[in-house]
Amino acid sequence: MADIRVTVWNEFRHEKIHESVSKVYPDGIHQVIAGFLQEEDDLQVRTAVLDDPEHGLSDEVLDNTDVLVWWGHMAHGDVDDAVVAKVVRRVWSGMGFIALHSSHFSKVFKSLMGTSCDLKWRAENEKERIWVVEPSHPIAAGLEQEYFEVPEEEMYGERFDIPAPEELVFISWFAGGNVVRSGCCYRRNQGKVFYFRPGHETCPTFFQSEVQLVIKNAIRWAVPNRGPKVTFGRSQPLEPLS
Amino acid sequence: MADIRVTVWNEFRHEKIHESVSKVYPDGIHQVIAGFLQEEDDLQVRTAVLDDPEHGLSDEVLDNTDVLVWWGHMAHGDVDDAVVAKVVRRVWSGMGFIALHSSHFSKVFKSLMGTSCDLKWRAENEKERIWVVEPSHPIAAGLEQEYFEVPEEEMYGERFDIPAPEELVFISWFAGGNVVRSGCCYRRNQGKVFYFRPGHETCPTFFQSEVQLVIKNAIRWAVPNRGPKVTFGRSQPLEPLS
Amino acid sequence: MADIRVTVWNEFRHEKIHESVSKVYPDGIHQVIAGFLQEEDDLQVRTAVLDDPEHGLSDEVLDNTDVLVWWGHMAHGDVDDAVVAKVVRRVWSGMGFIALHSSHFSKVFKSLMGTSCDLKWRAENEKERIWVVEPSHPIAAGLEQEYFEVPEEEMYGERFDIPAPEELVFISWFAGGNVVRSGCCYRRNQGKVFYFRPGHETCPTFFQSEVQLVIKNAIRWAVPNRGPKVTFGRSQPLEPLS
Amino acid sequence: MADIRVTVWNEFRHEKIHESVSKVYPDGIHQVIAGFLQEEDDLQVRTAVLDDPEHGLSDEVLDNTDVLVWWGHMAHGDVDDAVVAKVVRRVWSGMGFIALHSSHFSKVFKSLMGTSCDLKWRAENEKERIWVVEPSHPIAAGLEQEYFEVPEEEMYGERFDIPAPEELVFISWFAGGNVVRSGCCYRRNQGKVFYFRPGHETCPTFFQSEVQLVIKNAIRWAVPNRGPKVTFGRSQPLEPLS
Repeated sequence: MADIRVTVWNEFRHEKIHESVSKVYPDGIHQVIAGFLQEEDDLQVRTAVLDDPEHGLSDEVLDNTDVLVWWGHMAHGDVDDAVVAKVVRRVWSGMGFIALHSSHFSKVFKSLMGTSCDLKWRAENEKERIWVVEPSHPIAAGLEQEYFEVPEEEMYGERFDIPAPEELVFISWFAGGNVVRSGCCYRRNQGKVFYFRPGHETCPTFFQSEVQLVIKNAIRWAVPNRGPKVTFGRSQPLEPLS
Repeated sequence: MADIRVTVWNEFRHEKIHESVSKVYPDGIHQVIAGFLQEEDDLQVRTAVLDDPEHGLSDEVLDNTDVLVWWGHMAHGDVDDAVVAKVVRRVWSGMGFIALHSSHFSKVFKSLMGTSCDLKWRAENEKERIWVVEPSHPIAAGLEQEYFEVPEEEMYGERFDIPAPEELVFISWFAGGNVVRSGCCYRRNQGKVFYFRPGHETCPTFFQSEVQLVIKNAIRWAVPNRGPKVTFGRSQPLEPLS
Repeated sequence: MADIRVTVWNEFRHEKIHESVSKVYPDGIHQVIAGFLQEEDDLQVRTAVLDDPEHGLSDEVLDNTDVLVWWGHMAHGDVDDAVVAKVVRRVWSGMGFIALHSSHFSKVFKSLMGTSCDLKWRAENEKERIWVVEPSHPIAAGLEQEYFEVPEEEMYGERFDIPAPEELVFISWFAGGNVVRSGCCYRRNQGKVFYFRPGHETCPTFFQSEVQLVIKNAIRWAVPNRGPKVTFGRSQPLEPLS
Repeated sequence: MADIRVTVWNEFRHEKIHESVSKVYPDGIHQVIAGFLQEEDDLQVRTAVLDDPEHGLSDEVLDNTDVLVWWGHMAHGDVDDAVVAKVVRRVWSGMGFIALHSSHFSKVFKSLMGTSCDLKWRAENEKERIWVVEPSHPIAAGLEQEYFEVPEEEMYGERFDIPAPEELVFISWFAGGNVVRSGCCYRRNQGKVFYFRPGHETCPTFFQSEVQLVIKNAIRWAVPNRGPKVTFGRSQPLEPLS
């Protein structure tokens, strides 16, 4: 039963030009993410990258995507505005959207948030300790400990210029003295959005089991529900107007 | 596969003394609720009432309850404080709690909210129109229309003295000129709480399919997740203190 | 002491071409709003309209605006994207933004929300009853009653495609059978945003004292605070990294 | 103009029996807090302690209190339940309530939250760095930096069993590897509640200017507004019922 259709989108540029990245993700970050997702019986996974035609996000692909996972960093500006607008409308129509790490600055995420999404950062491979602050949330299900550590990561720190998360699942502690809201849930029209912080391109973060579990949980949380069809525009009175 | 264990609790007093109630719910409100829940393959249902020993909520029963559905009205004061404290602690440990209609004033719900939970009311069998304001919420899944009507109900109106709902799923319109937040989600420690407004004892509300669907959805939403075990108290440093 | 600098922006098109509007607001909606604001000792008020150079929103004007009040409807598309981007960045930097009525569909508001902001509507001059659901909120201060009525208004109804308000102050009841979240607070970076529903161009709504009081309260709530200066980008460790 | 009436309540037990406390707060924590509040022109300050008659919280005192500041720790259980119930009802009626540090476990705060309010702790005088995550919030006004440090404090860490804060102003980083939501806003009926984390009895935290500023800001934020009078109970129809 493969009922959740996931598309993993990756910018896929670092891996082609930076040896520090290609030695960790030789086939691209998307292949590693798709790999661990494909092990799940209820997930049907495809990938798409920036340099594909239409960035790999044709109408046909989006018509068959329940949840879109996004990783971008050095080439946010190369994503075509028309594709961005199309993806945003899909989220509004119910498609889940999982923004990973540096995708906080992707055009899609910024457009969905309505804020700058700016933050502090420091790429010195320091320890990140990710604390679960909402243990009853489905995105925390199955985690065995109250926190998990990523041994070496880029730091992202507050002030993180996002709207207050509707549900705040994780807060990260960094060895260098910073904190950040690192697991953030939002609803946008019919669609659900999750931001998950870790995943720097030079770190083997996506090979870590807790990170993989969180992404799987987030996908299942973000699946479109079968809510009522919503109508807009001119509307007849439901009660007689005197 | 009956994996969600539901206990339906009813005060069961009105039905014994008020003919206007017993003609609608001759075997008690709990039997009607249990009846439509038992049709679901994933739900395993039992009932408990105020006049049972320990109000039907022994440790053995609570040990085997994932979600507790509660209906009370005329005898809130007869619920033993020790049982209330026990139920609250169970919610804190993860048991879901669904408070129906006049249970806004139950000791358990008030204790979980930290507010008076007072409101306006009027029992004149007027039309309630329940609008879905968060169509992507799992509790709204499967509803075919953006609103549904209960033809005759007691009115509950704002100001409803609850904490701002963490997720507001429904707002009700009443013919007599009132509105109320009528589908309200909260987390309390590990547990999830949902308040759902309709269900007056003299109205056949619990026979209505949309009301039944919302209660089923709420039960599935409120199931304890398998989140990390949380520890409290004295804690060792995770990093060396200088 | 005139310490809050308010700019009232109006599209000012309806008033020039529709007699049904000009007979209510012969000098423009902005003049009526500015009029009642100018009676307040702590407010210093100017106006700006779409057909002014730069839509009346030059850097000099925005440099001297603490809170921008916005009314637009028929010409949202004529607002220059560069001005929209500039206003959004000002909000991010702390300028308050009050969106009135049909400004739910203004480019600025939609950009700040990240959603479609679509809704149901019906222009049949029906009664709107605006209920206070958060009486402790500063925007409700001074209201004498728990609700106030606008005798004839355009209806706006749910589903209103906005992010869940961070603070929900008002919910409106409409005679024709609809409800809508009608007083909605948000933070966007350093800036505060308030959406207030009433104010159709053919109705004398802005002459009503309760509506005027809410707008004054909202302005005072939305004033930039003197919070800490926020920095972004590369950040030094505050603690030694091993 | 001394228009905000503040009562500073302290348990005042540690100071009498523990030299490690009395050497820091010889006259009691309440005297230090009252001292810096009294410097403010708009605040009128009195104190009350556990061992006063009625714990110093007579009806006359509460009738003349706009905001109650609370510090308790070793004797939460000695606070009379009738006084707790009275204070809670005052908060519901609009009195602001500021819970400091170990008051997370006070009967009043727990009753207002509806949760266990449990957390992790470690009293090893470690560095706390308090990050502002909502710089536009009035409680952060006037802080010059994005974070401030308390050089030596007791650690409180997540999971902190509180309802998700309605407004989260601060998150604390601790040297020993923990984080905690450390500035948390709630509304309860008409009243506003703020929890502020620092303030261990053996640390000179309340002498620190940033801590003092936050408490002053919180008091001004928590002042009862002049919102509409709210009514409950049986309510007449506002519209004719057919």
